Amino acid sequence: MMTAAARPSTMDVDCRDESGETVVQAVAGEHPLTVYVDRREVLTLMTLGAAPEALVLGYLRNQRLVERIEDVVSVQVDWDVNAASVVTRSGLVDLDQRLAHRTKTTGCGSGTVFGDLMADIDAIRLPPEGEFRQSTLYALGERVRHHETIYKQAGAVHGCALFAPDAELLYFVEDVGRHNAVDAIAGMMWLDGVEGSDKIFYTTGRLTSEMVIKAAQMRISCLVSRSGLTQMGLQIARQVGMTLIGRAVNRRFLIFNDPGRFVYDVPTTSTGTPVSPAQGGR
Amino acid sequence: MMTAAARPSTMDVDCRDESGETVVQAVAGEHPLTVYVDRREVLTLMTLGAAPEALVLGYLRNQRLVERIEDVVSVQVDWDVNAASVVTRSGLVDLDQRLAHRTKTTGCGSGTVFGDLMADIDAIRLPPEGEFRQSTLYALGERVRHHETIYKQAGAVHGCALFAPDAELLYFVEDVGRHNAVDAIAGMMWLDGVEGSDKIFYTTGRLTSEMVIKAAQMRISCLVSRSGLTQMGLQIARQVGMTLIGRAVNRRFLIFNDPGRFVYDVPTTSTGTPVSPAQGGR
Repeated sequence: MMTAAARPSTMDVDCRDESGETVVQAVAGEHPLTVYVDRREVLTLMTLGAAPEALVLGYLRNQRLVERIEDVVSVQVDWDVNAASVVTRSGLVDLDQRLAHRTKTTGCGSGTVFGDLMADIDAIRLPPEGEFRQSTLYALGERVRHHETIYKQAGAVHGCALFAPDAELLYFVEDVGRHNAVDAIAGMMWLDGVEGSDKIFYTTGRLTSEMVIKAAQMRISCLVSRSGLTQMGLQIARQVGMTLIGRAVNRRFLIFNDPGRFVYDVPTTSTGTPVSPAQGGR
Repeated sequence: MMTAAARPSTMDVDCRDESGETVVQAVAGEHPLTVYVDRREVLTLMTLGAAPEALVLGYLRNQRLVERIEDVVSVQVDWDVNAASVVTRSGLVDLDQRLAHRTKTTGCGSGTVFGDLMADIDAIRLPPEGEFRQSTLYALGERVRHHETIYKQAGAVHGCALFAPDAELLYFVEDVGRHNAVDAIAGMMWLDGVEGSDKIFYTTGRLTSEMVIKAAQMRISCLVSRSGLTQMGLQIARQVGMTLIGRAVNRRFLIFNDPGRFVYDVPTTSTGTPVSPAQGGR
């Protein structure tokens, strides 16, 4: 049982530009959403509010506070009180212990159970199978460009997307926090029973350790970002066997890790640049 | 008493580009740093590690766990065990209560005591005095462009800078998390006894609620970002009387809030664009 309580994503405000003219600019929403599980307050998320129910479910999943979607009876979001009420079948996994752990972490930043996540990562090895074609990478890049509506209007948000192996766009979520966008997609996958192992995950955000850890937990084997990555994000991708592609903009990209999935299938010009009809540079 | 244990900021890794060539790319460091205060574990920060002592001090300051810099006896960072040990004169302020609160928050995200911070904001009104000239804004933008070395090399970091009213660059810090960079500058200001009220704070990151709250806590009256902002960041800036400028790139900018500090002093061309020697567009 679930509400569908999306907030309007942007609002227009007046501002003055460099020549002193008043201009109207769209600004991204940001709202506190306090999560209650079985009437107990767990935390407050700051969110754009576009997919609050999926966000809450994905947060509980990625923090491993709930093990199976079947354990969740209902998620009800009420923006009059900025609250999300979750009812579970049999309570959260070790809530007290996990809340105690959370106080030890922040991250770059995200309030995640970092120590626990790293322990979890040691047990994850992604299956080396699967193929990720250059033409698929370009196709999904094209699709993302047509979906980033809030970013184009207002900036100040990150987008995440999940793609099928044939570059079909399955989910696209934007949020003020890049980790919220990942969590919301994790929640949607849970609700729809979608497996991650043959999917491609795209994010506009940087590939820090936590982003790679969350993707690995979702069993995503191919992670693509328009931005750069950190040394620890790379180290974890190598450890779990994830194909990691950064700086994917237009026809350019850098493969930072790949255990044999990536296939170059786009002809290049004599200068080494893939053939491209009037694409901009990086 | 303080160590000066900066880590190397980048490492070179091999990767493959779109034409299949192997290229060497610099990648930003990311390291866990567990903070112990009076031998008690408080949290783990993920950081580039360029200014770990100032980061830890600024974190304790911005979370209001320590009230005065004089209460800190020593900060010792040891990267062999990824630990920062802080010794205080008389313990932390309400550590247990504050840690309990932290479990209720995340943010977009940052593990901050959000509820408490909002209560604090209600008490802050920035003095309306001071002047912020357009020529100063352009001068500080020029200076930032010459300092963003890690971003230019490796991406995946955010930069923050503190400027004097005459656009002199006082501090510049980059980190994998934008909140870490702010906290590190707060720590440096504390160590050097620098007041915020007549300074200008610049960040490459988005102006979300938490960024504006931290600036307000530091009594910064002018906050400038290269990126956009959220509706809640704007709302808090209006509430405390902060001059808030977003999308400041080259000669362009948008003033989202200003209680009368900003002065246009750069002549514009007939098209309304400030006179500029060969600057790129937004």
